[in-house]
Amino acid sequence: MQLSPSLTQLIEALRCLPGIGPKSAQRIAFHLLERDRHGGTQLGQALTRAMAQIGHCQTCRTFCEAPQCDICLSVKRQDNRILCVVESPTDVLAIEQTGQYQGQYFVLMGHLSPLDGIGPKEIGLDVLEARLAERLFDEVILATNPTVEGETTAHFVAELCHKYHVTPSRIAHGMPVGGELDLVDGMTLKHAFSGRRAIARDQE
Amino acid sequence: MQLSPSLTQLIEALRCLPGIGPKSAQRIAFHLLERDRHGGTQLGQALTRAMAQIGHCQTCRTFCEAPQCDICLSVKRQDNRILCVVESPTDVLAIEQTGQYQGQYFVLMGHLSPLDGIGPKEIGLDVLEARLAERLFDEVILATNPTVEGETTAHFVAELCHKYHVTPSRIAHGMPVGGELDLVDGMTLKHAFSGRRAIARDQE
Repeated sequence: MQLSPSLTQLIEALRCLPGIGPKSAQRIAFHLLERDRHGGTQLGQALTRAMAQIGHCQTCRTFCEAPQCDICLSVKRQDNRILCVVESPTDVLAIEQTGQYQGQYFVLMGHLSPLDGIGPKEIGLDVLEARLAERLFDEVILATNPTVEGETTAHFVAELCHKYHVTPSRIAHGMPVGGELDLVDGMTLKHAFSGRRAIARDQE
Repeated sequence: MQLSPSLTQLIEALRCLPGIGPKSAQRIAFHLLERDRHGGTQLGQALTRAMAQIGHCQTCRTFCEAPQCDICLSVKRQDNRILCVVESPTDVLAIEQTGQYQGQYFVLMGHLSPLDGIGPKEIGLDVLEARLAERLFDEVILATNPTVEGETTAHFVAELCHKYHVTPSRIAHGMPVGGELDLVDGMTLKHAFSGRRAIARDQE
C-alpha cells in the first residue's frame, strides 16, 4: 500500500525530532491526523515561524528575535560588571531559574572540539574577546559543562581573561545536593574533596 | 528570563505531540534551533500541508489526498468481492504489510463507544450499510481490535451484514506466534482453546 505523498513526507520530516524513529514518526503522524489536526496545524506554523525568525543576540549569542536580548539590554545587569560563559541557551535558562545570578551571559553555542573542526572562532571567542577588551567586566564565571571539552574551553577562555586583566572563575564541582556518596563517580568525589571548604565557627 | 515569543509558542505547540511534556518540548525546540533548522523548517511545511490536504477516501474512509484511495480504485481488488473492516488507517497499513489480503477495506476511524457519544453514524456505519446494500461483497472480515469496544463494534457490523445477506467473519484470536503459553493472558488462552483446529493427516 502506498501512503499518500503528503503523509509520506510528514512521516519522513518528523524524523528530524530527537529520538524519533520510523515507527514513532508514523504513530505521531496518524495521531495528529486522527485526533489533533488543529494542534498539528499550529505546530506547523509555529515551527515555520520560529525557524525563520529566531536568530542570535548580537551581544551574547543566545536565541533572540530582536538584535539584542532582554538580559543584554538590562542596565542593572550591565552595572554588575560580571559575565557568565555557558555552552548553550538552555544553560542560561537553567541559571536564570535559580534566580541567584544577576550578571550578563555569553553563550558559546558549543564547545572547543578541534577534531570536529570547532575552533575558537566557531564558538564566538572573537566576539567574546572584543567584549573583554572593552573592560566591561570585573569577573568572568566559566560555567561550561564539566566534560573534557567543557574544561578545555573553560581553560582557553580563562587565558583570554588573564590577557585582558579580568578575573576568571570556575563554577564549583562536587557532590550534587541530595546525591549519595557511594553512588557518585570517583571524579566528582575527587573534586568534592579537593574543593572542600573550612566550616566557620557559629557566631554566638 | 523571558523566552522570545516565537520560541514560547513553539514549545507550547510541540506539546500536541503524543507523550511530549513541557521539558521534552523545550529540549526539542532548542535541539531544532541549535542543530537542525533545515529539518525544523521542512517539518513545519510538511505539517501545514498534511493537515490541510489529507482528507478521507469517500469509499473506505482511510486517509487520502484524492477523493478515492488507490486500494478502492483497484479493479483487481473490487473483483475479489471481499471487504475488511478495521478501526484505523494504521490497521490497513499493518494488514497490507502482510501481503496476504487482496480485498478492499472499510476504516471506521474509531469504534462504537456510546458513553463517549460515538454511535453507528460517527464511525461511518451508514456509509458501510450503503456499500453492503450495493451487493458488492461476498464476505466481510471483521478485523476490529479484540477489546470490549472492538468486539461490540464487530457484533454490530455482523448484524448489518446478515441484514444484507453477506457472510461476516471475525479474524482468529489465539496465541501470538512466538508467544509463550505461560506468559499469555487467560482470555487469549481461552480463545486459543475454543478456536482449536483439527490437524489433517500428512499426505504421503
